[in-house]
Amino acid sequence: VAKRLEKFKTTIFTQMSMLAIKFGAINLGQGFPNFDGPEFVKEAAIQAIKDGKNQYARGSGTPDLNSAIAARFKKDSGLDVDPDKEVTVTSGCTEAIAATMLGLINPGDEVIVFAPFYDSYEATMSMAGAKIKCITLRPPDFAVPLDELKSVVTKNTRAIMINTPHNPTGKMFTRAELEQIASLCIENDVLVFADEVYDKLAFETEHISIASLPGMYERTVTMNSLGKTFSLTGWKIGWAIAPPHLTWGLRQAHSFLTFSTSTPMQSAAAVALRAPETYYDELRSDYSAKKAILVEGLKAAGFIVYPSSGTYFVMVDHTPFGCENDVVFCEYLIKEVGVVAIPTSVFYLNPEEGKNLVRFTFCKDEDTLRAAVERMKERL
Amino acid sequence: VAKRLEKFKTTIFTQMSMLAIKFGAINLGQGFPNFDGPEFVKEAAIQAIKDGKNQYARGSGTPDLNSAIAARFKKDSGLDVDPDKEVTVTSGCTEAIAATMLGLINPGDEVIVFAPFYDSYEATMSMAGAKIKCITLRPPDFAVPLDELKSVVTKNTRAIMINTPHNPTGKMFTRAELEQIASLCIENDVLVFADEVYDKLAFETEHISIASLPGMYERTVTMNSLGKTFSLTGWKIGWAIAPPHLTWGLRQAHSFLTFSTSTPMQSAAAVALRAPETYYDELRSDYSAKKAILVEGLKAAGFIVYPSSGTYFVMVDHTPFGCENDVVFCEYLIKEVGVVAIPTSVFYLNPEEGKNLVRFTFCKDEDTLRAAVERMKERL
Ligand SMILES: CSCCC(=O)C(=O)O
Ligand SMILES: CSCCC(=O)C(=O)O
Repeated sequence: VAKRLEKFKTTIFTQMSMLAIKFGAINLGQGFPNFDGPEFVKEAAIQAIKDGKNQYARGSGTPDLNSAIAARFKKDSGLDVDPDKEVTVTSGCTEAIAATMLGLINPGDEVIVFAPFYDSYEATMSMAGAKIKCITLRPPDFAVPLDELKSVVTKNTRAIMINTPHNPTGKMFTRAELEQIASLCIENDVLVFADEVYDKLAFETEHISIASLPGMYERTVTMNSLGKTFSLTGWKIGWAIAPPHLTWGLRQAHSFLTFSTSTPMQSAAAVALRAPETYYDELRSDYSAKKAILVEGLKAAGFIVYPSSGTYFVMVDHTPFGCENDVVFCEYLIKEVGVVAIPTSVFYLNPEEGKNLVRFTFCKDEDTLRAAVERMKERL
Repeated sequence: VAKRLEKFKTTIFTQMSMLAIKFGAINLGQGFPNFDGPEFVKEAAIQAIKDGKNQYARGSGTPDLNSAIAARFKKDSGLDVDPDKEVTVTSGCTEAIAATMLGLINPGDEVIVFAPFYDSYEATMSMAGAKIKCITLRPPDFAVPLDELKSVVTKNTRAIMINTPHNPTGKMFTRAELEQIASLCIENDVLVFADEVYDKLAFETEHISIASLPGMYERTVTMNSLGKTFSLTGWKIGWAIAPPHLTWGLRQAHSFLTFSTSTPMQSAAAVALRAPETYYDELRSDYSAKKAILVEGLKAAGFIVYPSSGTYFVMVDHTPFGCENDVVFCEYLIKEVGVVAIPTSVFYLNPEEGKNLVRFTFCKDEDTLRAAVERMKERL
């Protein structure tokens, strides 16, 4: 294995999903629904395959999907973007992140991330040769420590990676936090890479795209995907929206990472993104009910549950059960309780910082959530 | 744009396909069929979508597809591989190439390629920080110049990239050439990255996987894809077969480049790969007829046509028409003749070496090929 990837292990999501299968445990680990995506989107994919939309798509995305993405972004953020020059379709948001890092970051550039962070951020930074600067968000509210953040910005800082709503904490960056980050970026000529795949799963306040703040669009890559919002995580359709000068760099990387993304799936994604607002309202209301079941259950079982205002994840402190280590606790949870969660220490540069914390997902049907909660209440 | 990608332009395939649309020219440039893939494969994808196979696949590929790939490879090469530990499904062979480079090559490692080469080889080597060593294959037969090859192997040589059947020349590496490359690799402890996406389009002799030569499997990554063989280039299903120690490195890169590949498409790909041999025989016989139309037509139009024994491409020398430059010639061909071909100078480290050469594809229905040929005979 090349040195750039030496320190990384099999992703924790794969590890935990394999254990879930092996032990027949209820999988509240990896974030994929155990229910299917909407019929109208599946129908659109089937139609596209039948219609012979089966050859290479334009590398940057089918014109139809790029337009649908731009229209959706306009509705959500108020920003007008050129679908052909500022939108790039990728094979999932994971590829958008990789293409952004490899296309825009030079060796030695400093990139700031907030821990806990999604594991691909660090790995793709390593591929790009970025120097990682890490700021830890701490419970209970996972607020951005502004002074700490300011103190790590140097003349070599090239970008800040943000993820709101935030995986794994469920935190949403507040308008004040986003404005503070925006000023810092504008003052220091820093880019923002914004992973917003959970934007439609904001339960209390509206999601804010940092690109929509004054002066920010020109320095922001906004990334999103179809999978979470449409319960089709296996289709692997993502995208990046950025001004032309940033789009150029990430598209070049995309061209040579995957070249283009599945044509019939893009056709269906365009139909999905044109869904009426009621689709999203229903999605949120379904997930609110699921969240209530999980949160109440985790509390009743004895966890310290941190507030989650977005994503389909909840962070808890597991130490009331007397275990000092998240990985050990999760093993116990799988083998003795029959439930899979995600240990979070892998999401920190310093694993010690995550050892009390474990993440559960509620993207499962209500019966499954209830069954998991019952097991934890009984057996923990 | 990051320095690693500075020298690259919009891929020539995208450039030429855009010009084809703009000028309404017949597109014999980018290699995608203008006919659809087989019904039984499309049906399998539709069924998978209906059956709810729509969530994240296992990162390394669905167990079903990995098994089908291993079984197919056994039939084709005689090699027994472990589907779970030695097969990795990627988002097209393009991603397999990127993952192999980023997962196995360190900055400063030397990688040997044969020019003309598919453009992503050089770009992904640049992403990995590889030092590129280039050996030119020259017309008329594009034979491997063994002494030249030997002379560039050093103690820093980490890998040789080979592509057989070879895009853009249509050359197939002979058994003797593969054996010579194999000895060189074994003597010098060099890996082989083998792009074999056109393996089923071998018209005169059987395709040989270099991995099947004695002592080679352990040092070879064999890459392939669904798109060319099943006329479904837009589905973006590829794979890499390699011994566990090499699979580990490329899988780590794959995990963070795309994580996993479209689940319903993988389900259909598994069905495709289990097709009886008659499917492949028919494919080859269809393509032989197409090839005959194009080759005869190009000769009649006045090109010097080089023999193509594999792939769906033919290389020609365009200089009988009095133009000294492949790019200028292709522009003329689009605007004045109404046919798109691919200029080849971008496939050389030294563009001068490709200036007489242009590539045509015959992956189009016979009427389209005839119409293109008529235009060239009349207007050139
Ligand atoms: C790409 S696998 C991980 C899915 C996910 O986003 C999560 O569980 O955090
Ligand atoms: C990935 S676009 C190029 C298609 C192709 O393989 C070719 O035309 O050479």
